[in-house]
Amino acid sequence: ARCGHGEVIYAAGKLPHEVVAIAQELLERGSSPCVLATRCDDAQVAAMREAFDGKQPIEVGERCGAVIVGTAESKSTTPIPIVTAGTSDLKVAEEVALTCKALGFEPYPINDVGVAGLHRIMGRLDEVRAGNCVVVVAGMEGALPSVVGGLVDVPVIAVPTSVGYGASFGGLSALLGMLNSCASGVTVVNIDNGFGAAYAACQIERAVLRGGRNPENGSG
Amino acid sequence: ARCGHGEVIYAAGKLPHEVVAIAQELLERGSSPCVLATRCDDAQVAAMREAFDGKQPIEVGERCGAVIVGTAESKSTTPIPIVTAGTSDLKVAEEVALTCKALGFEPYPINDVGVAGLHRIMGRLDEVRAGNCVVVVAGMEGALPSVVGGLVDVPVIAVPTSVGYGASFGGLSALLGMLNSCASGVTVVNIDNGFGAAYAACQIERAVLRGGRNPENGSG
Amino acid sequence: ARCGHGEVIYAAGKLPHEVVAIAQELLERGSSPCVLATRCDDAQVAAMREAFDGKQPIEVGERCGAVIVGTAESKSTTPIPIVTAGTSDLKVAEEVALTCKALGFEPYPINDVGVAGLHRIMGRLDEVRAGNCVVVVAGMEGALPSVVGGLVDVPVIAVPTSVGYGASFGGLSALLGMLNSCASGVTVVNIDNGFGAAYAACQIERAVLRGGRNPENGSG
Amino acid sequence: ARCGHGEVIYAAGKLPHEVVAIAQELLERGSSPCVLATRCDDAQVAAMREAFDGKQPIEVGERCGAVIVGTAESKSTTPIPIVTAGTSDLKVAEEVALTCKALGFEPYPINDVGVAGLHRIMGRLDEVRAGNCVVVVAGMEGALPSVVGGLVDVPVIAVPTSVGYGASFGGLSALLGMLNSCASGVTVVNIDNGFGAAYAACQIERAVLRGGRNPENGSG
Amino acid sequence: ARCGHGEVIYAAGKLPHEVVAIAQELLERGSSPCVLATRCDDAQVAAMREAFDGKQPIEVGERCGAVIVGTAESKSTTPIPIVTAGTSDLKVAEEVALTCKALGFEPYPINDVGVAGLHRIMGRLDEVRAGNCVVVVAGMEGALPSVVGGLVDVPVIAVPTSVGYGASFGGLSALLGMLNSCASGVTVVNIDNGFGAAYAACQIERAVLRGGRNPENGSG
Amino acid sequence: ARCGHGEVIYAAGKLPHEVVAIAQELLERGSSPCVLATRCDDAQVAAMREAFDGKQPIEVGERCGAVIVGTAESKSTTPIPIVTAGTSDLKVAEEVALTCKALGFEPYPINDVGVAGLHRIMGRLDEVRAGNCVVVVAGMEGALPSVVGGLVDVPVIAVPTSVGYGASFGGLSALLGMLNSCASGVTVVNIDNGFGAAYAACQIERAVLRGGRNPENGSG
Amino acid sequence: ARCGHGEVIYAAGKLPHEVVAIAQELLERGSSPCVLATRCDDAQVAAMREAFDGKQPIEVGERCGAVIVGTAESKSTTPIPIVTAGTSDLKVAEEVALTCKALGFEPYPINDVGVAGLHRIMGRLDEVRAGNCVVVVAGMEGALPSVVGGLVDVPVIAVPTSVGYGASFGGLSALLGMLNSCASGVTVVNIDNGFGAAYAACQIERAVLRGGRNPENGSG
Amino acid sequence: ARCGHGEVIYAAGKLPHEVVAIAQELLERGSSPCVLATRCDDAQVAAMREAFDGKQPIEVGERCGAVIVGTAESKSTTPIPIVTAGTSDLKVAEEVALTCKALGFEPYPINDVGVAGLHRIMGRLDEVRAGNCVVVVAGMEGALPSVVGGLVDVPVIAVPTSVGYGASFGGLSALLGMLNSCASGVTVVNIDNGFGAAYAACQIERAVLRGGRNPENGSG
Ligand SMILES: Nc1ncnc2c1ncn2[C@@H]1O[C@H](COP(=O)(O)O)[C@@H](O)[C@H]1O
Ligand SMILES: Nc1ncnc2c1ncn2[C@@H]1O[C@H](COP(=O)(O)O)[C@@H](O)[C@H]1O
Ligand SMILES: Nc1ncnc2c1ncn2[C@@H]1O[C@H](COP(=O)(O)O)[C@@H](O)[C@H]1O
Ligand SMILES: Nc1ncnc2c1ncn2[C@@H]1O[C@H](COP(=O)(O)O)[C@@H](O)[C@H]1O
Ligand SMILES: [Mg+2]
Ligand SMILES: [Mg+2]
Ligand SMILES: [Mg+2]
Ligand SMILES: [Mg+2]
Ligand SMILES: [Mg+2]
Ligand SMILES: [Mg+2]
Ligand SMILES: [Mg+2]
Ligand SMILES: [Mg+2]
Repeated sequence: ARCGHGEVIYAAGKLPHEVVAIAQELLERGSSPCVLATRCDDAQVAAMREAFDGKQPIEVGERCGAVIVGTAESKSTTPIPIVTAGTSDLKVAEEVALTCKALGFEPYPINDVGVAGLHRIMGRLDEVRAGNCVVVVAGMEGALPSVVGGLVDVPVIAVPTSVGYGASFGGLSALLGMLNSCASGVTVVNIDNGFGAAYAACQIERAVLRGGRNPENGSG
Repeated sequence: ARCGHGEVIYAAGKLPHEVVAIAQELLERGSSPCVLATRCDDAQVAAMREAFDGKQPIEVGERCGAVIVGTAESKSTTPIPIVTAGTSDLKVAEEVALTCKALGFEPYPINDVGVAGLHRIMGRLDEVRAGNCVVVVAGMEGALPSVVGGLVDVPVIAVPTSVGYGASFGGLSALLGMLNSCASGVTVVNIDNGFGAAYAACQIERAVLRGGRNPENGSG
Repeated sequence: ARCGHGEVIYAAGKLPHEVVAIAQELLERGSSPCVLATRCDDAQVAAMREAFDGKQPIEVGERCGAVIVGTAESKSTTPIPIVTAGTSDLKVAEEVALTCKALGFEPYPINDVGVAGLHRIMGRLDEVRAGNCVVVVAGMEGALPSVVGGLVDVPVIAVPTSVGYGASFGGLSALLGMLNSCASGVTVVNIDNGFGAAYAACQIERAVLRGGRNPENGSG
Repeated sequence: ARCGHGEVIYAAGKLPHEVVAIAQELLERGSSPCVLATRCDDAQVAAMREAFDGKQPIEVGERCGAVIVGTAESKSTTPIPIVTAGTSDLKVAEEVALTCKALGFEPYPINDVGVAGLHRIMGRLDEVRAGNCVVVVAGMEGALPSVVGGLVDVPVIAVPTSVGYGASFGGLSALLGMLNSCASGVTVVNIDNGFGAAYAACQIERAVLRGGRNPENGSG
Repeated sequence: ARCGHGEVIYAAGKLPHEVVAIAQELLERGSSPCVLATRCDDAQVAAMREAFDGKQPIEVGERCGAVIVGTAESKSTTPIPIVTAGTSDLKVAEEVALTCKALGFEPYPINDVGVAGLHRIMGRLDEVRAGNCVVVVAGMEGALPSVVGGLVDVPVIAVPTSVGYGASFGGLSALLGMLNSCASGVTVVNIDNGFGAAYAACQIERAVLRGGRNPENGSG
Repeated sequence: ARCGHGEVIYAAGKLPHEVVAIAQELLERGSSPCVLATRCDDAQVAAMREAFDGKQPIEVGERCGAVIVGTAESKSTTPIPIVTAGTSDLKVAEEVALTCKALGFEPYPINDVGVAGLHRIMGRLDEVRAGNCVVVVAGMEGALPSVVGGLVDVPVIAVPTSVGYGASFGGLSALLGMLNSCASGVTVVNIDNGFGAAYAACQIERAVLRGGRNPENGSG
Repeated sequence: ARCGHGEVIYAAGKLPHEVVAIAQELLERGSSPCVLATRCDDAQVAAMREAFDGKQPIEVGERCGAVIVGTAESKSTTPIPIVTAGTSDLKVAEEVALTCKALGFEPYPINDVGVAGLHRIMGRLDEVRAGNCVVVVAGMEGALPSVVGGLVDVPVIAVPTSVGYGASFGGLSALLGMLNSCASGVTVVNIDNGFGAAYAACQIERAVLRGGRNPENGSG
Repeated sequence: ARCGHGEVIYAAGKLPHEVVAIAQELLERGSSPCVLATRCDDAQVAAMREAFDGKQPIEVGERCGAVIVGTAESKSTTPIPIVTAGTSDLKVAEEVALTCKALGFEPYPINDVGVAGLHRIMGRLDEVRAGNCVVVVAGMEGALPSVVGGLVDVPVIAVPTSVGYGASFGGLSALLGMLNSCASGVTVVNIDNGFGAAYAACQIERAVLRGGRNPENGSG
């Protein structure tokens, strides 16, 4: 594993059998009841299905190519709201959702609530405010995190997507928009990095579960 | 002369006495009852005041350095809403307003209604919707035109400003955000180009005043 | 619909049957007598033809993949001049034209009048000046809107195209040229965004049709 | 008001007396026992001192120009580790620290532990791991968040700084480095945006204090 | 001399007395009857005046800081048309003119004929066509070389200028526009490089004077 | 027609039969004894061969896809040196050569003389110096025009190529290198624009053939 | 050969039979006992195998497409450590290794020691420190050379790779990170340029073998 | 301390007395007989002179602001050639030279040998070839390292400088040119980073002095 998170495989650039082999090894090692492979292409998904179908529960994100083998141990049922601007952002939002699941947390998708139709997000405010943090996924001008950031009082993790054309420059426009957000409490991950956003969100949930390390708070 | 518009002087890079001389010549030529000089620095403003105070009405935009000498002939009293996100965008908004005035139209400023506090723009919807077009001025992530574009049914002219720091890259971030706006009907001018946005807005007003060239509409 | 304009589908990234289904739903909902889908690829066009041929009028832009199903209600017969520099810009100009049609307005193409042969645009000045606004489509150096802006006294909506190679950087060069236009009254949309330019143009026409909201003008 | 957060003033571009006036108004309104003004220049700091010295407790960050007037109500004593790479990053780190203080939380600076001398960060691991999140401030190649992210199991908020020259391109290099961090759980704010990083960190602390909204957790 | 052209000094970054000393040495060496120093600031101009006034003819470009000491030997009286778009481009055009003079050729300025007012260039076509090549100087969108290139049948040397603001990005916009010119025969030099454009133009004139090296042409 | 030059077709983006049809029309119109089509792909080349083989002389550049139909009238036999750095630049150099031919001039290729082996260019100095101008084609760092510019006393037209990888950024690196050339008299065209460089070179040759317009020179 | 190193072929853009022919010619010329071809695609590798299998020793890098024909004469057995961050960087690292071999030096790969898991590089410090220089290959944020540079006291040659997505911008992010390294003694080559890094490393080894040219050191 | 190298101070952004204090502490600590402070401005240089004049040998680089206090222990007298293109590069070359001195090695400047006058570098080939490595300093198009790399058989360390204007983009053009060098064995440091280039060069010299770690070479 590249960066030390043993249970996660970044499939891009690996051969199908390599992905399967790493997944098997990780499951056998037993440090986690499930394994997540992100960015699998069709051949890699097929290889994973062939290797694990009937032996292990397997869940595949059809849009984003994330694959979970095994069943994550649930750590919390607090919803992690995943807010998306438009249809085209669903691919990245799915990577967020499957990563949350694999880490034992509850993804809660709130789709198609882009800023050019404010009534949509306004109509779902209670759901957006139900979590300890919010993940916001948007392409094009990347304005949604600013709007969400102004509506909630928890950390907003913004994921720019490469959705768009022309001057969207492969997600650069959305990325810059999010970095310059005038709403406080918005932090940003790489373009299309649904995995990273979910990982950060789950770390926040874990901190909440632990109850803080504050001595005055009576905890570790 | 700013590319052939006889009544407007782009003062940047001209000597104070040159600005005054051009203004005098334009007024004498008499094709327009007033002259507008944009981007005047302190010395240029002082020279203009010295040359025209007591002789001609003179109005100075303290933030943006636009100077109107003479009185524009009023063409219309329909308000042109000029919506700004934050305090720092007022400089550019002032250039929009003074240009509208110099061209004979009514600027109508709606300030400090940035997207991180939606109640602010929501509370002023009637005013935003009162015009035949809307000028929206915003820096940083440039999200306001998308929100406004979703709330009105008239053309939105977006002006990115160089307000911001770091990854705002001198207004590039706002510019890209506006070009990628997911709201239909948003068009964009150069960074900080309040003059150009106002000019385009006034051309729309003029088209409305003319009543169209549509034969079926009974006009020219 | 992402941005609240119910009658328009952005087909890129959707499955053919999804595009058809959305179109059917929009038509059934009946808020508009026609529906427009932009950026359809061959498979999406085929699916639309199969679904609607014989049942509904259907018009397909062969170059740009825009599809109109149903017949728009005509709102005005004032021509909207669509000026293009060269052959390669015709694809984007077609998206402008079909969008105008779908919104009930009259596209009026004026093709192949690029600035390196000025007699071409000069020979068609009357046509260029016949509208309440002009849409100008150009790639490479994007100089045409400046020239047109100097020749007409109505708003110019400039569409940079990704036509070109090398230092055209996918339309960036044309985009920057248009943003820096020295002609007043030029506003700009995203690279290749024929839809957006047409939408803005039609909003101007609508404002003209409404006759303004100016109390002194006896309206709105 | 910085996008609706009543207690924080972004001083850049405001006149000294304007900053003072806003601060006074905010304090009188009484919604918060203290007010924070960031990015004050010398004249603004002087005006604040003159206005408040002897009347209110006042704390000034000499490097970053942040000013706290009044005393924040302490919300938690859990340390928020603020890790910096080199001397030149102290300016931004100070903005992080003062913002934490103004929001009622405990900044805990860990300075001069850049990645070219790993023993430095290794020698202070216990301190780095003592919080519910970590803020990492670094310029130049922006490598420190990746190293810290690999050493801790809490969210890492990375602040790129404009420290450097040549190909650092005003912080762009550090920003890109952090966005591409191979350590999971790293999120990023704008270049030099110490305020934003601190705000996000304090929101995490607040979530921890609230104990989560998880029904199974017996809360919210 | 950096690049082997002994008679030209690039003054930027040199001390006043260094510029004078190099000029004296070049004149004494006697390989050329005059010397050109470009980009002199006020102090350098003053030093040159003090050193040479009364001893040598001296001509100073007040806008661009080019200084000619001595008298160039005239090589040709064919005019080299130097076409500029607007007032702000005069600085660079002056560098073109003085370099032509220093090399023994005839600059012929044609000013203020930008593309947003085509009648201006149209009214001076004979003059534009009088040379063996044309130098075109323009900032902002850099459209003028395309228009000129379409009107003449000789090489067009385009000089982008850093005139403009916002998305002109210090001349980048004009540079890209010129590189993408749809007119054939346009070549481009660096932003603000009036010296280089003039040098290339004079080399063309020299080739014409030599009458070609074509044996069938009866020459060298 | 490529911006008004009737005899040249820019094939990119046209259908094979369209290219053939335009070529036929141009030949029939008879203003020129030959026609040039650049950037033809395999299908377009095949269509041209099928249409003209046996009827007209036809010459095809296998690397660059330029096609000449008919025989150009020779205007001059002075060689136009076309200097290339490496094998990969031959494609663009071929476009230069065929364009020169189609315009009636003599291309003279001098290949594989890149700057990392100076003896190669040094060994061919006489050939490099034999023309009235030189075209230099180079990718990667684009250093060859500076070296050639220092060795010859005629105009150097530099063509950056998209040859390279990584930080060559599709020819941007070579382009910037050439624009910053420290050799005087170097002018630059767009990346991979062999056509434009040849066109400019031939215009210089034409000026030489005409013998100048200088009255003192006894001509034009 | 473009750059004068007769024994190395850059296969990209050459036909398979051309690569074979150049290799044969170089081997026959006999200046070196082996030849290296980099960046061979599948067809080129196949042609090389067919031409040389059974006649000459042939070694193929399966990931990077480098091919060595013949056997290099060993110049030194000092290991050249090649440190890589993650699996995806192995392709470039292989080009480094095969180039070292072809030049007669000993590659020593140290893989999968990225900075997000410091124990990995810490556990192999002796190996990293065993050479006269170190080559470090990394993509994404490019942080590894800074860490290695702080751990060794020999020159570090950093190779950014195009591994990553989104804001990695094809290796730009890693490149900038390495250029801004805060560790002294780090120099950088082009993105993915394993060949160039190996070549520089071997030149250092050669200098060491020669024992310096320092007279006081008693050598050449 | 500049990233852990105790004997070197990076003065930029430090107060004069801070630079003096660090220098004194380093000298007292005694780990090195001298200390180097780079990038001192006038006030810092003055403070250093006042603190050390008469007490310690002190050498000041007037152009680059590097200051050496104390006397370095000579490690080698092999010259390290420092090749510069033009006058304006002398500032950075001076930083290279003083850093070499402070580290105990012999700088050997070879100035004003830019590529537009090849005879200059050709006339000094013996000197360029006298070292175990070469440092090449150049701005504008950054072509010199490619030429030098083709002439020597030792590592070339290239330093791009920010010398130039317009499309030199603060040294970016030179940086890209050097990264794309077609000469093998060229490695690159940050723009204007004379210190880093010298440090890498001295590490090569140290490796040579140590005689390698190759067992077969009879050493460590
Ligand atoms: N979609 C993704 N984007 C970014 N990083 C990822 C992604 N999926 C997995 N990773 C990271 O990549 C590591 C595995 O890399 P590898 O060892 O190459 O499979 C995981 O530990 C994660 O930190
Ligand atoms: N070619 C286009 N470019 C930009 N926006 C478009 C285009 N076509 C449609 N749209 C917008 O996309 C919306 C539909 O998006 P969707 O709901 O994803 O189909 C429409 O309401 C338009 O605002
Ligand atoms: N304004 C200018 N822009 C670009 N290059 C110039 C300029 N003025 C002079 N030069 C070149 O710089 C050389 C002199 O450089 P130097 O030896 O540094 O004075 C001349 O030979 C010209 O080639
Ligand atoms: N992978 C590579 N990247 C950069 N340069 C290379 C590479 N492989 C070979 N070269 C260089 O390219 C030259 C051969 O180029 P060519 O003559 O086109 O085959 C060699 O002498 C090397 O200097
Ligand atoms: Mg919030
Ligand atoms: Mg709207
Ligand atoms: Mg106009
Ligand atoms: Mg971690
Ligand atoms: Mg022409
Ligand atoms: Mg020359
Ligand atoms: Mg080191
Ligand atoms: Mg070499």
